[in-house]
Amino acid sequence: MTRPQGDFGERQNTPVTTSSAPPPAPIRVTVWGENRHEKIEEHVAEIYPQGMHTTIAEAIKENLGDACTVRTATLDDPEHGLTEEVLASTDVLTWWGHAAHAEVSDEVVERVHRHVLSGMGLVVLHSGHWSKIFVKLMGTSCTLRWRNEHDRELVWTVNPTHPIAKGVPHPLVVEEDEMYGEFFDIPVPDELVFVSSFTGGEVIRSGCTFRRGHGRIFYFSPGDQDYPVYHNKDIRRVIANGVQWARTDRPERSHPVLLRYDTDDFFNGVDYSGPLR
Amino acid sequence: MTRPQGDFGERQNTPVTTSSAPPPAPIRVTVWGENRHEKIEEHVAEIYPQGMHTTIAEAIKENLGDACTVRTATLDDPEHGLTEEVLASTDVLTWWGHAAHAEVSDEVVERVHRHVLSGMGLVVLHSGHWSKIFVKLMGTSCTLRWRNEHDRELVWTVNPTHPIAKGVPHPLVVEEDEMYGEFFDIPVPDELVFVSSFTGGEVIRSGCTFRRGHGRIFYFSPGDQDYPVYHNKDIRRVIANGVQWARTDRPERSHPVLLRYDTDDFFNGVDYSGPLR
Amino acid sequence: MTRPQGDFGERQNTPVTTSSAPPPAPIRVTVWGENRHEKIEEHVAEIYPQGMHTTIAEAIKENLGDACTVRTATLDDPEHGLTEEVLASTDVLTWWGHAAHAEVSDEVVERVHRHVLSGMGLVVLHSGHWSKIFVKLMGTSCTLRWRNEHDRELVWTVNPTHPIAKGVPHPLVVEEDEMYGEFFDIPVPDELVFVSSFTGGEVIRSGCTFRRGHGRIFYFSPGDQDYPVYHNKDIRRVIANGVQWARTDRPERSHPVLLRYDTDDFFNGVDYSGPLR
Amino acid sequence: MTRPQGDFGERQNTPVTTSSAPPPAPIRVTVWGENRHEKIEEHVAEIYPQGMHTTIAEAIKENLGDACTVRTATLDDPEHGLTEEVLASTDVLTWWGHAAHAEVSDEVVERVHRHVLSGMGLVVLHSGHWSKIFVKLMGTSCTLRWRNEHDRELVWTVNPTHPIAKGVPHPLVVEEDEMYGEFFDIPVPDELVFVSSFTGGEVIRSGCTFRRGHGRIFYFSPGDQDYPVYHNKDIRRVIANGVQWARTDRPERSHPVLLRYDTDDFFNGVDYSGPLR
Repeated sequence: MTRPQGDFGERQNTPVTTSSAPPPAPIRVTVWGENRHEKIEEHVAEIYPQGMHTTIAEAIKENLGDACTVRTATLDDPEHGLTEEVLASTDVLTWWGHAAHAEVSDEVVERVHRHVLSGMGLVVLHSGHWSKIFVKLMGTSCTLRWRNEHDRELVWTVNPTHPIAKGVPHPLVVEEDEMYGEFFDIPVPDELVFVSSFTGGEVIRSGCTFRRGHGRIFYFSPGDQDYPVYHNKDIRRVIANGVQWARTDRPERSHPVLLRYDTDDFFNGVDYSGPLR
Repeated sequence: MTRPQGDFGERQNTPVTTSSAPPPAPIRVTVWGENRHEKIEEHVAEIYPQGMHTTIAEAIKENLGDACTVRTATLDDPEHGLTEEVLASTDVLTWWGHAAHAEVSDEVVERVHRHVLSGMGLVVLHSGHWSKIFVKLMGTSCTLRWRNEHDRELVWTVNPTHPIAKGVPHPLVVEEDEMYGEFFDIPVPDELVFVSSFTGGEVIRSGCTFRRGHGRIFYFSPGDQDYPVYHNKDIRRVIANGVQWARTDRPERSHPVLLRYDTDDFFNGVDYSGPLR
Repeated sequence: MTRPQGDFGERQNTPVTTSSAPPPAPIRVTVWGENRHEKIEEHVAEIYPQGMHTTIAEAIKENLGDACTVRTATLDDPEHGLTEEVLASTDVLTWWGHAAHAEVSDEVVERVHRHVLSGMGLVVLHSGHWSKIFVKLMGTSCTLRWRNEHDRELVWTVNPTHPIAKGVPHPLVVEEDEMYGEFFDIPVPDELVFVSSFTGGEVIRSGCTFRRGHGRIFYFSPGDQDYPVYHNKDIRRVIANGVQWARTDRPERSHPVLLRYDTDDFFNGVDYSGPLR
Repeated sequence: MTRPQGDFGERQNTPVTTSSAPPPAPIRVTVWGENRHEKIEEHVAEIYPQGMHTTIAEAIKENLGDACTVRTATLDDPEHGLTEEVLASTDVLTWWGHAAHAEVSDEVVERVHRHVLSGMGLVVLHSGHWSKIFVKLMGTSCTLRWRNEHDRELVWTVNPTHPIAKGVPHPLVVEEDEMYGEFFDIPVPDELVFVSSFTGGEVIRSGCTFRRGHGRIFYFSPGDQDYPVYHNKDIRRVIANGVQWARTDRPERSHPVLLRYDTDDFFNGVDYSGPLR
């Protein structure tokens, strides 16, 4: 009936050069944190004494282990810690910001945008929905409804075969979080992975993927600074899954480009030289 | 077996107040044209002696008749013809630009963007893929491959029940057009309506819808200035269909907004007052 | 700046034959009801004394008025009231079933399936998620989680420009309903219009569209027989909107077909004559 | 600015137990082939002397090497080689059939369908579009237009960050293939990866993913028996990529099920016991 694997293997393993790939290199993750609430508000500093970025970085390392290397960068670093060199050596950037979106320089936003379209992964967390970079990538207002009143958040998986849902309980229970609700003004996600509900009855599309240019973006809404959400082990798993998913499969970083191609030549494009003959 | 319509109608038409709506008001269309090639290049002026915008406006009127009113605006009008007043009285804006994308003022782009997110429909044609407004709404580079060598374009319908495909031949044949091919760096469309092929073998997702904020966007790729594409009756039908589809169903124009809602009050949001307690 | 509409209209209305279409014919709706709970269970008969199908039919008529004609059909009618003749004269079929899915004859299911792929609209309500016709069209198990304990259901709009959301409050409040929750095993919807939450915290993708063949399908989850959900005016509006949306734009009913086409002949296909030369 | 990786790693690697997962087990692939043309038609036997299934199996092995084990099964095996035992030990099943779709037993189709919804991956090739299993999973007619006249097929990537597109040239050139064209009556794919064009100008959505239940499905249209398509190294890469993608991330195979949940108990569902109180 079915041929035994062994026989089949013997017959073909001899002549065929198999391309069993080496294990992929570790994902180079940069965790970006605004790091302002932690400095200004005592109750936040108590939850995140080394800053939210440190906690998020640890969450990724905890889950991915040797499969990643993680560094952090914050708003108050020169160039917000996001120099051309840093981005060029970052496979996936995670972003948490809130109080100081406006302080992020447009130049850095342009740089990050270019890297995302060129293939850098981006994981945007919670209040990052209103960051300059996310708004620029989405093209919409990225507004929503909200309330900070200790709602319980339940994160339900609506796409159970998605890699970002791997190992995530259904539902994932967050004892206390800020409420973020619909209408959330984002483009229709390429993939809707999670939908959350809150004690008050509101819902939000809380786990969404978007492909833009050569890059992949994951937005995940849980995570206010006033609650220990990033200490929740399931939330930590989702963020790590998101990082894994957002890493591109493409071998090199390249920005999409407009090129002219001669008839019957599909592979040698020529740069744009202007709109008029 | 089945109840005759008459009986059923009698039984219920008496007590029920039906809400048979009046016919919808005509769609107020503004056709925006860059209107530069027509002035500079003789061969374009021969095809479009009154400007491409006039031809496009006539195409819409030809198909929608009394169901629309159409006006035009061009780059060289004050404020490019797109004042707050004009946009506020426009249900659907169509956009054709090419040689002078950079001359469109950022202020007008912001204004159009705000109106789209607030509910104004937008139909972007051909080289409008690289306009400031389309790039801003998409968040990507909107680049593609191209060649201007008299390729025949075949426009195939892949979504036959979509209203934009209504009455459109399968395939729609354009005798000569510029080639626009993949990879076309746009977000995954909400709906893919048409896919085109060219003599040279290239393909493009040529008819795409996107919902952004409270607005609807239709991108349609055929239509270079060097060919009489906008005189093709089927192309004209598609554009008119796109205009009809892009008109919002919402009664009033409103920009999505970030609001706080108390528990158990779903309808009375409060404006944002800042990120810190 | 912008040309006055009047001038423009004059210039082109003379030579152009406008195709201002006549108002569309009324939508011919057939409301199918299983009509068993109403006969067997007194508490259901009290809520729906003439059967749920009658209430649903009235809801559609109430909202669409002269823009529709509505008839009903039930399981115990010969051929369940869904003869070839009835389906051929039905633009949109609505379906509510629950206790007796298994009693629906496979022959009728095949007939309805053929009509949907040929262009008949289908609106599937609540427990119809497990009907033979919906399962056949989806290809999945269509299972979900549930609880019948008087949960309040909140129906949130996540696609505010969709015609099915027109005039629907955000959220739509259903005081009591059965809980239907995720994971709901359906294909990813073409369009996600509504997401519901329940008192207990569960969520479901409650308003979903699917295009199949030449037909359009809308699934809407509120509506258990134990509660007066179909008397709720906003629920009635959604169902009527769904009926309007599900009516095809295509002029005639036709089943997709496999045809052979000669090179350079795009319009005259030839029937399949077998797999071997 | 950015913290050096080493420091960060030292600080956290000590206390944290990392969960660096072992390499995943090899993907257990079963390649199903109808194996009729190869026996009946000499010109097919010349291209595929050991059957198309053998060639396809070798293609997968060639690309995935030790990361997979591959066996084959054919129509004329008992139970078509697809016993419960075989399916239970198959991570991904590939399917090529054409002349004898009708000979595949309904019982085996049900079995495969159940395994797909439970988590087995499925890669459907070329004429498999009209197989019982694909039609059942899609819910549509799966018809298309075709012509067997040595068209060149160009396979264009429209989703460059999708893992199935990894390492695939843009375009992928197939010197000769059967033409498969739109309208292809399938549900809107969850992800559109490839679009093909043919010498004659037709196009088709040639690489499509679908998630159904707990399973993943990839349809890839190139591959007629009359041409050596499965000897093309890039086609072989795509099939291997599809196999990798279709393998589920879920730890165990389970069919979606309808369960009742008490309020506040999200994790202990109870089997369905009937529709009436």
